[in-house]
This record gives sequence, C-alpha cells and structure tokens, in this order.
Amino acid sequence: MSNPFDMVLFGGGGDLALRKLIPALYRAYREGSLAEGCRILPVCRHQQDADQYLNVALQALQQHLRDGEYCNSIWTGFSQLLRPVALDISVPDQQWTHLSDILESDPERVRIFYLAIPPGVFGPCCENLSSKGLISKNSRVVVEKPLGYNAQTSNEINSKIASYFPENSIFRIDHYLGKETVQNLLALRFSNVLFEHLWDAKTIDHIQISISETVGLEGRAGFYDETGALRDMVQNHLLQLLCLIAMDSPNSMTAKNVRAEKIKVLEALRPLKGGLVDKNVVRGQYVAGEINGQKVPGYLDDLEGGSSATETFVALRAYIDSWRWAGVPFYLRTGKRMEKRCAEIVVQYKKVSHLVYDESAGNVVPNRLVIRLQPEESIRLILMAKKMDSLTTELQPAELNLTLSDTYDSFRSDAYKRLMLDAAANNSALFIHRDEVAAAWAWVDPIIEHWRETENQPKPYPAGSWGPEEANELLARDGRQWFNAY
Amino acid sequence: MSNPFDMVLFGGGGDLALRKLIPALYRAYREGSLAEGCRILPVCRHQQDADQYLNVALQALQQHLRDGEYCNSIWTGFSQLLRPVALDISVPDQQWTHLSDILESDPERVRIFYLAIPPGVFGPCCENLSSKGLISKNSRVVVEKPLGYNAQTSNEINSKIASYFPENSIFRIDHYLGKETVQNLLALRFSNVLFEHLWDAKTIDHIQISISETVGLEGRAGFYDETGALRDMVQNHLLQLLCLIAMDSPNSMTAKNVRAEKIKVLEALRPLKGGLVDKNVVRGQYVAGEINGQKVPGYLDDLEGGSSATETFVALRAYIDSWRWAGVPFYLRTGKRMEKRCAEIVVQYKKVSHLVYDESAGNVVPNRLVIRLQPEESIRLILMAKKMDSLTTELQPAELNLTLSDTYDSFRSDAYKRLMLDAAANNSALFIHRDEVAAAWAWVDPIIEHWRETENQPKPYPAGSWGPEEANELLARDGRQWFNAY
Repeated sequence: MSNPFDMVLFGGGGDLALRKLIPALYRAYREGSLAEGCRILPVCRHQQDADQYLNVALQALQQHLRDGEYCNSIWTGFSQLLRPVALDISVPDQQWTHLSDILESDPERVRIFYLAIPPGVFGPCCENLSSKGLISKNSRVVVEKPLGYNAQTSNEINSKIASYFPENSIFRIDHYLGKETVQNLLALRFSNVLFEHLWDAKTIDHIQISISETVGLEGRAGFYDETGALRDMVQNHLLQLLCLIAMDSPNSMTAKNVRAEKIKVLEALRPLKGGLVDKNVVRGQYVAGEINGQKVPGYLDDLEGGSSATETFVALRAYIDSWRWAGVPFYLRTGKRMEKRCAEIVVQYKKVSHLVYDESAGNVVPNRLVIRLQPEESIRLILMAKKMDSLTTELQPAELNLTLSDTYDSFRSDAYKRLMLDAAANNSALFIHRDEVAAAWAWVDPIIEHWRETENQPKPYPAGSWGPEEANELLARDGRQWFNAY
Repeated sequence: MSNPFDMVLFGGGGDLALRKLIPALYRAYREGSLAEGCRILPVCRHQQDADQYLNVALQALQQHLRDGEYCNSIWTGFSQLLRPVALDISVPDQQWTHLSDILESDPERVRIFYLAIPPGVFGPCCENLSSKGLISKNSRVVVEKPLGYNAQTSNEINSKIASYFPENSIFRIDHYLGKETVQNLLALRFSNVLFEHLWDAKTIDHIQISISETVGLEGRAGFYDETGALRDMVQNHLLQLLCLIAMDSPNSMTAKNVRAEKIKVLEALRPLKGGLVDKNVVRGQYVAGEINGQKVPGYLDDLEGGSSATETFVALRAYIDSWRWAGVPFYLRTGKRMEKRCAEIVVQYKKVSHLVYDESAGNVVPNRLVIRLQPEESIRLILMAKKMDSLTTELQPAELNLTLSDTYDSFRSDAYKRLMLDAAANNSALFIHRDEVAAAWAWVDPIIEHWRETENQPKPYPAGSWGPEEANELLARDGRQWFNAY
C-alpha cells in the first residue's frame, strides 16, 4: 500500500474524471489500496458546492461501476476522502486559496496533479500551480493524450510542462499500458523460455495489432476532424503496444531500462516516406452503414456539414529494422464505426518446418498467441493437438487460455486504478517518456506530410465493416489476412 | 472402419483377455469400429462350452467396464461375434478342427492371432497353426511382453515366431504406446513450432520418466523373482517412452520411419557398463510398509520363503549421445509398492536465460511439460504468468491442460482397443520391431551382467515410499529432484 497522498483531479467534473478516474479511485479504496488519510481533490471550473459534487460523483459511480461493486457503506467511507474544490484553473485569482489551504496542511506528502483537462490549459494550470507555490518536491503531474498534433506542437506542450516539473515527475498515461494482459504479456515473454526463445524472425511470421471501435465521433467532431485516426490512435496506443511486443529484453524491468528498449524499437521503425506511404498505409473514412442492426450515418453526416479528408480508419504495414525482427511485418489497424469493438494483438508463428503427418491428419494451423485487451481481457494460445480417441491421427487446433479465467473468477482489471496507484508509488515503468513521444511523432509525421502533399483522399468504407477493401489487399499481397475479432 | 476380420484370442480365458482384451473389443463394437461380420474367437485350454465362456466374458465386462459402458442390448449384439473355441494349443490333435472350420469358412479375410499366453508356448502354438494350414497370407500375430529374459532368449523367441510369420505380420504390443496422450505428445511435438523448435539440449534441462505401481507381486511371484524391475519395465515400457520423447523428427509418421528414429535413439544410449552402472543405476527392493493406511508385507514375505536379490525398483540416469541431447540427462524410475500409482513423463526446461524481474516478483519456476499416462491421462504445461490485479508484478506458475478435458468430457482412452484396431488395419506404427527389442536388450544386458558379477544387493525401501534414498541422491548429485506424482 502507498503512503497517504493527495490526488488533485483537474477537470474533476469532466467526462474522463467521472467515467474513469472516480470509479478507479473508488475501486482502489474498496480493495484497501488507499492508505488512510489519502485525499482526493476534484477541481471543477463551474462553481458548485461540495454536496453538489458528491451527488454528481455518486451518480457517476452508480452508473459506471460494474454489478456488485457499488455499496453504500463503501461510498460513505470513500466520499470522506473527496474534497471538491471550485476553481477556474486558468485564472490566477484568490480562488486558489481553498486548494492551497488543503494541500499546504500537509506539505510533505506526495501530491499528484492529474490534468484531466484539454492540453490548451496545461500551461496556465501549471503556471498557476507554480506561482501559488503548490509544486512541492514530492509533486507529480499526470497527463493524458492527446499531447499535441505533431512533433512540433507535442514538443511545445512537453516543454511547457517541463518548465514546471522535472521529467521524472511527469507521468504520461496511455491507459492501454495499464491493462493487466499487457503486464501479463511481458511476464509471459520474460519468464518463460517457451516464449522468449522463439520471439524473433526465425519463428514468428508476422504480428497484427488492431484496435477497432464501433463508436463514431461521440461529440468530439471538432477535435477529431483536425486529428484523424493516425494521430489519435496509431501515434500513441498502437505504437506503444508495438514497442512492448517488439522490444528486446531489458536488463531489468526498471522504468529507465524499459524506456530505453521501447525507444530502440521506435527508432528502428523503417521510415515510411513518399511513395512508401502509398504502398504501406491505407486510409479510410466511414460512410453510412449498419452496426448490430442499427443504421448509422456516415462521417460527413456526423460532422454536420462540409467535406473532410480526415481518416477515421488506418491500416499499415511496418517493419522494424533490427536483428530480431528482420523481415517480419507488423500490421497495425484502427478505425471507428467498425464491425466489432476490440483491441487485440496477434502473434502469428510460422508454419512447422516440415509436415510429418499426411493430409489425412488435417490442416496444421500455425501456432498463434492472441492478446485481447478489449472488450474483455484474455491471452489465448492456439496449438495443434490430436483429436482424442480417434484411431487415425486427426489434428485439430486447441485454444488455451493463459489468463486462467478459472483461477480468476473475480478478476476485473481497471487500467486507470493501476496507473494512478503506480503514479502514487512513483513507479513510472508503464508511463511514457518524452523521448518516446518524440520518437513516435518522428515516425508518424512524414506519413501525414505525404498525405498532405499528395492531397490524399481516404477510401470510403461502410460503417459496420472491417474497413476499406484496400486494407485487406495490403495483407493479401503478402499472402496473409487480418484476424478479425469474433 | 476396418474390413471384417477374425480375431483369435489364445489365452481367451486368461487374465489379460478377460480384464483388457474382451472389454477393449466390446468398446470397439460399442462405438461402431468393428465391421459387420467380425468374429472373435477366444481359445481356452480348459474344456468349457460356448455358453459357459459367454457367462465368464459377461461377468468380466460387468466387472471391468467403466460406469455407464455396459448395456444389455450392446452385449447381446457383441456376444454374437464371440465364437469360443476349446483347444489346448500345445497339442496337435483333432481339437483344431473347430477353429479351422470357422477360419477356413472365409479364408481371405484378415486373421489376427493374439497370443495372450506365456512365451513358452508361442513356439508350439505357431507350429500348430502352421501345420494345420491356418497361417494365411492375411494373417497377423500379436504378442505381448515379456519377450525373453535377455538379448539371447528374446532373440530365440523372435526367431521362433519369425519362422512362421514375416516380420511385417508380427505386432509386438507395448500398451503404453497405445495411450492417447502418447499420440498427442507426438502430435504436439511435430505440429507446433513452440515445442519442436525448443526440443533439444539448448532449452531442455532434463527429462524424467517414472512408472510407479502400488501393487506388489499379484500372484506372479515366481515369474517376477526371475525377472526384476529392469527387465520387466525398463527394457520395454520405459525405453519405448524414452524413444518417443527423444527421437528426431521422422520424414513422415510411417511405421518404418518412426522405427528407424527409435532405433537411432536406442543405439545412441550411452552404454552403462562396469563401474558406470554403480554410479548411474540404483536398485531397490521393498520391505514392509504402509500404503494408503494399509500395512503391507515386504517383498521377501510376498515371495513366501527364501532370500532374493531381485530388484522391485530401479532408478537410473541415461545419456543419449546425439547432437540433440548432448549433456541432457534422462532419469528413469520404476518400482512396485510405491506411494502412488502413476506413469508420468516430465520435460523440464531450463531456467530463463536472465531474470528481468527482481526478487519481489517471486521465484521464476522453469517451464515444465508433464505427460501423465496413468492413472488418468493428461498433458499439462507449467508456465509463469502474472498474478492478476496485483499492483506490483507478482509472478506465479500457471498450469495449462493440453488435453483439453473440457472439450473431451466423455473422452476415455483404451490403449488395447486402439492397438487391436491398429493391428486389424495393418498399421504397425505403434508396435515394436524386432530390431528395437534387440537394441533395448543390448543396452540393458550389461547392467544386469554387472549386477551379477558384483553380486549387487538391492537397497531396501519401505512399501509406500518413493524408493530408496539412493534414488533421490542420484538426482541430488546433479542438483535436481524427482517430481513425485501428487
């Protein structure tokens, strides 16, 4: 358990705080992970008194917790940790005294500023924290994507934060990295000779990383149309997952060592520039279609007016130019309004070197490791085994569950809970260093640049499909196909 | 399904026939694996009429079938295939006409002579079959261990049979090879890159093969005291399992190719002669003890008189001098009156090359593949995984079931059924070639020879234990230990 800490949630009345952060903190409290004396300070711009905020938080919990998690008596205890603060963070007036009074009542304790606010106000917020003397030596700041629009704007935001916090006090969240299965993937890789000894181009055929969403713009039309899928998803989530899958073994699992290995992967990504972009990247934009029997409008309708060349889908083929991964393609794919909501990593092994059984034994399917992060978490291993009690040898694929759901009946992961507790414990292994952000943008920027130069138009795909046909062709040309979630 | 065949069970009233063979044939009938018109001819020395034999067979089925397998209407159908024959096979008189009349009514069909009789009467039996003209071109003979006492006597028995049957019509049974998990082990090895690519000295630390029994002499005192555990179990069952575990990949799974690989293993076994025997082999003999709370007498008491230096337990360390297995010890162990009845193969992988997690993550147990043949069949893989929902990384061993018992609720293997149907289908892949028998004896004989020369006395071990302490020391000297069944 951590020592008592103060967690200041800027944007405490916002969507992220109410849907994710407050429930995560409730769960941490419920399981006893919050030390006695911890204080949670949701900061809301709009004036509301404490009771009003507690009501809003209670409603959010009742709406967003899972069945059986909410309990009146736990809420009573948890609500006593909540100290709502009304404050417009962009204004350096006397409103800050309330926050300041609470924090300075225990100046030595760990103080976490969670910026659940738009990046545009990161600067004023940090500046005011600083000028009010609230950034103690035990202060940390947690920020969430999107951090900028390209290498340059991202660098500007990072520099702004860096003028108030040292890099080792800045915790950049990617909630995918807080998923238990991502942690388990690393444990499987580095604690089992069966995996790590065969984790390379000699045995692995290719790797797929897909994050598909069924939702559309969810009220973020303005932001999204300026961003697009490549910036919104690939630059951060997909490349982060790629790093963990592809990285070499660190000497130890310290934040510093893991980061060094991740940066090594990002720097080894073969640049996609000019004509290579057209060959290796497919852009798409959804048009009207149907999801789960419901008709849904197209992207331009969702935008409510005007034309747009923004991609809501991207599929690409990447290569990592390293000894380990020479010649192994990494296929990345993400999109909105797709057939199913799913985040999945597929490690496809090569075929067996030689078939010793004849055709009558059946097709030998190559081994496959499937790590699912969403909607539920699981790790499955597909092996070939003999069909039991058959006189002739009949082979058939068998699926093993490496997350052992039987053992973990009650297991339910909460990535935000884990990451907030990590930040409180000063464990930055699962957070993203500024250098990683820079390396990711350095690879992504030239792709966007080429699209801009060539006035690339995204391929239409019907809502409820797996993206434009060109995405299938990208793999078909290599004699492969996407593993679509089922 | 096979064509209709005639199966002649010599020793039809004996223990093997009634406990194993008749139930196996009943199961084959029940599942529809016997073609219409198949005939089963149990041959009994002691005069009894057909109805008497059917009664005995019915009782045996009711006693030895598993719950739910016996059914009156199935028995009615099955019993019509049974054509009991009263005949003393060592006497070439007119008794043979009954058998001959039945068989010659369909001279072209496959004819299987199953010699469930002592090896001492193999010769007269075959001789009479030959002189009565009953060995047709479609005839096969099935024989079961023990085939002799050493290389010489085994060779004599094989030569005797060979003077009446060509080698490709001789099916030498080792019922362990008919186990489904043994088949599945081969399927796993040769249909999954995850296994076969790491099936060698680079990744595997050592292999254990144990067959432990809780029974004592079971009325076989005279035979057993002349035989001992090395001849009774190691020479055949344990070395056969060793061959399948250790063999190189055959070009295809034909009987000829598999046999060639097995012989290659047997010939690569590093000879144990002279002083090497004392260093690498432990002999034991049980003394009085307790099994499952029941007091049981010692071996000499079971013998009812006299002294004996026969081993009822043997543990040994073998090396296979090949590129694949250089330096990898194979520990073999078998004994009577041990703590648990179990036949198990353990493939112990090496430790991970380097620990990236610190001690707080817990001990990293090396991967282990455990193939259990008895009392139930299973294949388990022990991996390290992350303990879910733990903030710090805690690693723990996780056990995966590769036999997928969930998929095979109703799965119950019968090795004899499989092997008899294999013999009917002329599939000899799971049977033992004469050359294998010779190669196995060639390795075993010098061990016995050394014991004889040095008048070696077996180490006493209490009934109900895992054998003499010296067997533990054999592994402890190498820094290892036995995986005792639990």
